[in-house]
Order: sequence, then C-alpha cells, then structure tokens
Amino acid sequence: MLTIHSDAHRLHHGAGEFYRGRIVPCFEMPARVEQVLASVTARGLGAVVAPKAHGRAPLERVHAGDYLDFLASAWDEWTALGETGDALPYAWPARDLRADRAPDHIDGKLGFYSIDAAVPITAGTWQAVQASADCALTGAAAVLGGERAAFALCRPPGHHAGPRAMGGFCYLNNAAIAVQAMRDAGVARVAVLDVDYHHGNGTQAIFYDRADVFFASIHGDPAVEYPFFAGFADETGSGAGVGCNLNLPLPWGTGADAYGAALDTACAAIAAHGAQALVVSLGVDTFAGDPISHFRLDSPDFTRIGARVAALGLPTLFVMEGGYAVGDIGTNVGNVLEGFARG
Amino acid sequence: MLTIHSDAHRLHHGAGEFYRGRIVPCFEMPARVEQVLASVTARGLGAVVAPKAHGRAPLERVHAGDYLDFLASAWDEWTALGETGDALPYAWPARDLRADRAPDHIDGKLGFYSIDAAVPITAGTWQAVQASADCALTGAAAVLGGERAAFALCRPPGHHAGPRAMGGFCYLNNAAIAVQAMRDAGVARVAVLDVDYHHGNGTQAIFYDRADVFFASIHGDPAVEYPFFAGFADETGSGAGVGCNLNLPLPWGTGADAYGAALDTACAAIAAHGAQALVVSLGVDTFAGDPISHFRLDSPDFTRIGARVAALGLPTLFVMEGGYAVGDIGTNVGNVLEGFARG
Repeated sequence: MLTIHSDAHRLHHGAGEFYRGRIVPCFEMPARVEQVLASVTARGLGAVVAPKAHGRAPLERVHAGDYLDFLASAWDEWTALGETGDALPYAWPARDLRADRAPDHIDGKLGFYSIDAAVPITAGTWQAVQASADCALTGAAAVLGGERAAFALCRPPGHHAGPRAMGGFCYLNNAAIAVQAMRDAGVARVAVLDVDYHHGNGTQAIFYDRADVFFASIHGDPAVEYPFFAGFADETGSGAGVGCNLNLPLPWGTGADAYGAALDTACAAIAAHGAQALVVSLGVDTFAGDPISHFRLDSPDFTRIGARVAALGLPTLFVMEGGYAVGDIGTNVGNVLEGFARG
Repeated sequence: MLTIHSDAHRLHHGAGEFYRGRIVPCFEMPARVEQVLASVTARGLGAVVAPKAHGRAPLERVHAGDYLDFLASAWDEWTALGETGDALPYAWPARDLRADRAPDHIDGKLGFYSIDAAVPITAGTWQAVQASADCALTGAAAVLGGERAAFALCRPPGHHAGPRAMGGFCYLNNAAIAVQAMRDAGVARVAVLDVDYHHGNGTQAIFYDRADVFFASIHGDPAVEYPFFAGFADETGSGAGVGCNLNLPLPWGTGADAYGAALDTACAAIAAHGAQALVVSLGVDTFAGDPISHFRLDSPDFTRIGARVAALGLPTLFVMEGGYAVGDIGTNVGNVLEGFARG
C-alpha cells in the first residue's frame, strides 16, 4: 500500500492548547507521525512518497474562500500586533451571536473561524495544513489511478474542520477534500468511514445535505465527549442527504465486541449506499491507552478493523486523523493497514 | 442616591481567564467593587444598603431554567471529577454545531452555556451572582417605590449574559433582570442605556424581539472589539421589537466629543420610545486608562455622562457593569453618579 507523507507537518507544532481550565502541551504533536512512519516503513507496507502540490482549487471545493484566506494570513495578523506565541481564539459566535459577519480584528477572526481552543496557529501552520491536504489529494489520485488502497499520513488531522471553521486540532478537512476530489473525478458515490474516537463533525457538516457522499462515524457519545455538540444518533442528514449520515455513538468503556458490532453496522450501511470508493478517517484514539479517550480497544483489535474494512471490497483511501498514545500509535495504525492488506 | 451592595461578591474571585493565547489574571476582580464603594461612601452620595433576597423567580423571567440549574451545580460537577482549580469551558456550540441539546458531561455543559473563556466558575460563583442579581432587584424595587434613582453596585457584572449563556465576566444579566422586574411591576415601557465599552450582547438578545424594552448601546466597534459577533449598527430588533434596538458602535480612540454626540443620539431615541423608567448598564471602561479598552474618556467626562442621563428626567437604576482601571474606577463611577445627582 502506498503511503503519502510530507516532512512539512513538522512546521506545525503548537506549544499548548486550552483544556479543562489550563494550558496543556498539545496532544497533537509531530512525534505522532514520526511513529506511524517508522511503523509503516519497518513493516514494509509499500512505498512512501511525497505529496504532489495541488494548490488552492481543491480546498475551495470544501472550504469557504474567506476561511482559507484567514488560515493563510492569521499568523501574520497575529504577530503584527506584537504577539510571539501561538495564536488561539478566546471568544466564539455561539448562542445568540452572529456567525455571518467576520470581524476585522484577528482576535475576532480566530473565534469566528473556530469551535474550540485546541487549534493553535503557529508560524508554519498554513504550510503544514496545505501539505497535509496534499497528502490526502495525492492519495486520492493514487486510488483514482487504480491502486487498491493508499494511506495519506496526514498531519494536522482534518475531520473536525468544517466548511468555515477549525477545531479539535484540525484546520483543513483532508478526508472531505479527498472525497470531493474523487467525486469531481467522476466517482458517483463515495463513502466516509470515520473510526476516530471523536465524532467527525466537520466531515458531517460538509456533506450533511448531500446524497452522493455517505458518512458513517463510530465514536464516543458526544453527551460525554468532545465535540459535545454533534455526533448524536438523530443526525441523519438533511434535504437530499436524509439517510446518508449515520452516527454510532458508543459509551465510555466500549471494548472490541461492541465496537466490532458497530463497525459491522457501518460497513453494511456503506455497502447498501452503493459507494464506489471509500475514505477512512483513521484515528486510533479508540485504543485503551489513549490519554484523552475512553474506549478499550487493544492493539490486535486494530488488525481486525483493517480486515473488516477490506471486506467491503472498495478502492480505499486511509486518511490519518487522531490517536494520542504516541508510544502505541505506530503499532495501531500499522495493524489497521496490515489487517487491510491481508484482508 | 441609594446604593445597594453585598459583600458576597468576594465569593467570586476567578484566578484567571483565557485571553489571547494565555491564562491571565482576571481583569474582573473584587477590588473593583471595593474602590467604587469607597468612592460612593467618601462622596456621601447616600445610604448604602444590603440587597434583599429575591429568590429564583425573577431570574427565570430572563434566563432559561436549565441554565440556572447549570450555574447552581457546575462547581460541584467540576470538583466531582477531581478538579480543584476554576472551571472554564474549552469547546463551544458555534458554527455548524448544535445548541439545542445540552451534553451530560460538565466539560460540554460549560461550553454549551457560554460564549467565551472569560467566565471562571469558582466555589462561590453561584452565591455571588445571585447576590449581584439581588442588588439589581433591590435597586429596581427602590425606584419602583418612588426613589428618583438608585445604584446597584453589582459584581459580577451582567450585560454579556444571555438567556442561556454566560460570557465576558457575566453570569446573570442583572440589568435585564431589573428591567423585567420593572415591567412585571407594571411599568409599561423601560429603556436600557448601556454605556459600557463593550456591547451588551446579552441584554440585546434578551429583549431583541420586544417593543416594551428599548435597548441603546454605545460601545467599541465589534469589528475590532469583544464581543465581536454582536453590536453592529444593523442590529435593530426583530419581530415586534424592530426599531427598539439601537447600536452605536464607535472606533478605537473615540474621545469625549464623539462620545457625547452618540450619547445625545441614544438619549433622544430613549425619549422618543416613551420609556417610563431607565436602567443604565454602567461600565466605565470607556476611560482612557482602561487596560483592555480603546476609548479616550477622561474622568471629568463621566460627570457629563451622569448629567446627560439625568436630563432624561426618568426614574433611573444604575447597574454596575465593567471598568478595569481599578485605581480610577471609583472616581469614574462616582463622577457619573454625582453628575446625575446634580443634573
């Protein structure tokens, strides 16, 4: 299986995020990708290639132009005020506030284009997120070109990023960008399977009213878990997309049996939708040892996830999302990919 | 002029707020009220009395019941998880997220019921905010009882708190609670004049679709100033309330002349509305020396504000809001009240 990776991810290394009343070191760190790359290489899963630059056009198919402008200029606007640390938002257009009018001041823009305080913008963030999206697009191109599967080793991750908002360590929605590229290349129906521990609220929002993209997500119940305000079972799509959004929230403590049953449900729905290609938002924070999550999967369980996905028999692009047990992330991602390759 | 004050404000003393990428000591601190109280007392402006407890009913006339339940239980829910510091939110129902379903977990609730990260909840917050609302209600009762004016020395402040959200150092909307109490006591039309540097988004939201309450606010342009997502001139009310909301955003650097012209505009609109009572959301962060604001009023200008408000000739309740130049807040608030009393 082809892996697409760019060293540019290292340009994004936030010093901290605001979490539970304090600033903590970012859980989403460069070492995550280094570990995964080492595992992929050691297992001999296939070639590792650099992404091809795809430019802005495919990003605009998923994200608002003004949001992309914001990501491109935020660091310069922030440092122009004399700031030297990471840029982070502190006020949001929630509740009765307006989300239709972008403020001029960078403090306002940071909140206008985000949903939480876990998205530091650093000097290299814009370069890193573009490279991350390019990994997904290069992977999509490989699958479109006939590869059975590819692995976009994206960082930063993407599935919490919506059409016009960053959040949950995510800036550009790599998976959604890849899906849209597949659609634009002529694939009539594409499915997203999001196995990250956290609901992929950004991906859901991007495709919520569309019938051509089926979105299935297995995740920690948002009643007790980030992102808190999306991912409930009653979110089934709107307009033409009714019935094309499947959320399978599971309680804290979920182990391999209950997880496997939910995965069967998701895969059956994807097959029923008639998808011709699959994008997997691959988070491994469902691992028992993850520092910010509450499922109980063990490393061998990830091999079974890969095999189950392979049984769908679809051209498949894996897109790296979350997973914060840095010492185990390589093993767990490698297990998914190897399980798929053998499946 | 009667002043209503409670020592209970000291029970709320947040250690820090999240602001511009870091945790900073709370700008909204107990010393603010101590300084104002000293000024009021030194000037012999009138009696200082403790508030009467009014209970939950008048709060429910303005705020959602589930929001009050949240404020009452948040600290216990937070500390039940082993936390010992202040509770603060870190994820919000902004953008494409749902604001209709409260999460079960306290982390989710904190975001569900807020709009920013400047609202620490401490062990004594609920007691303090109830006492603060009681100051406003006791002041309203005094004015309803025939006093020309009263000063509710509220802390925490209130004008950023909406029907179901805390924000900007505010938890219960003291001014709105007082307005509603006046309405419920039979005053047909009440006006709010918000002279705090920051737009009173909470008060606006509470009365936005009503014709019986006129809201006028003079504040820093939200394009460049908190709350960023409300306070623009094109927000004029909805439904029955169209024309009953007047926002007068002014640019950074605004001095006494431009401010005075805006105040004349606001007062003329209040008179035209036919209000029979006035509630002034009294912030003095329009002062040139305020650490987080950008207007240029000097201390004598506040005397003129008081005199201009007095010229409206309405029974008037002053409700303390912002002002963070602690060394000058006593002088500036005292000047407003003395200017009114002499006016």
